Amino acid sequence: MSDSEHDWLRPAEQDETETVIDADTAQGDPQVAETVAKIKSLRQSIDNVDTAIVSLLAERFKYTSQVGVLKARAGFAPADYKREDYQIERLHRIAVDAGLDPDIAEMYREFVVTEAKRRHKRIADAGGDPGILDVFA
Amino acid sequence: MSDSEHDWLRPAEQDETETVIDADTAQGDPQVAETVAKIKSLRQSIDNVDTAIVSLLAERFKYTSQVGVLKARAGFAPADYKREDYQIERLHRIAVDAGLDPDIAEMYREFVVTEAKRRHKRIADAGGDPGILDVFA
Repeated sequence: MSDSEHDWLRPAEQDETETVIDADTAQGDPQVAETVAKIKSLRQSIDNVDTAIVSLLAERFKYTSQVGVLKARAGFAPADYKREDYQIERLHRIAVDAGLDPDIAEMYREFVVTEAKRRHKRIADAGGDPGILDVFA
Repeated sequence: MSDSEHDWLRPAEQDETETVIDADTAQGDPQVAETVAKIKSLRQSIDNVDTAIVSLLAERFKYTSQVGVLKARAGFAPADYKREDYQIERLHRIAVDAGLDPDIAEMYREFVVTEAKRRHKRIADAGGDPGILDVFA
């Protein structure tokens, strides 16, 4: 699906049946056209950031899959609360330094740690053999 | 908090009062010591990935904050479902290419879009002026 039409911009606060600002309307109003162009440019940057983050998440889950296999084979538990405390403190600090709301960093951490643990448990239940899970764990 | 002690590794399946594998136990068993060393190395890589992702999230929320201000000033709605469909399809494709479970990419997308929308709405409610929100929005 293309993002190139401008009909994805809807004016707010028009009861429930929001109308759509299409390319013609945008062309007709130079100020609207400028806003639309700025939003498009920002969205391209957002998409580039998402590409980088999804690629990094792929690497992260490869690492945690390896940790899951090592833990399961050694009989270690999937959860590790000291490690989590360490990560919470660390990511909070990095977020503040980077100008990010630390709540966002904590939501990110919870999301990846919860998913990693869930996958660790599946690996452990399978006797330490990630099997088909290895591809996506 | 340091991650350097080995007491963060607990054997699984020992009722609720899990005992802890400390540095001495790990030293005493070469195989356990090797597993612990491997996990530590992987965790360092995981931490490096998290540093990169949190830094990128900081940039992402700066961009979406700018989009929020532009939308609010122009009277556009915070939500944009065509844009979301585009992102869902795009991130699914990138995840598969990267060897990441597409469900993880979709969870990531939901998390950032939900937060961005919530912040857009706050900006809109404040009349397009991000004010104090600008720092973290």
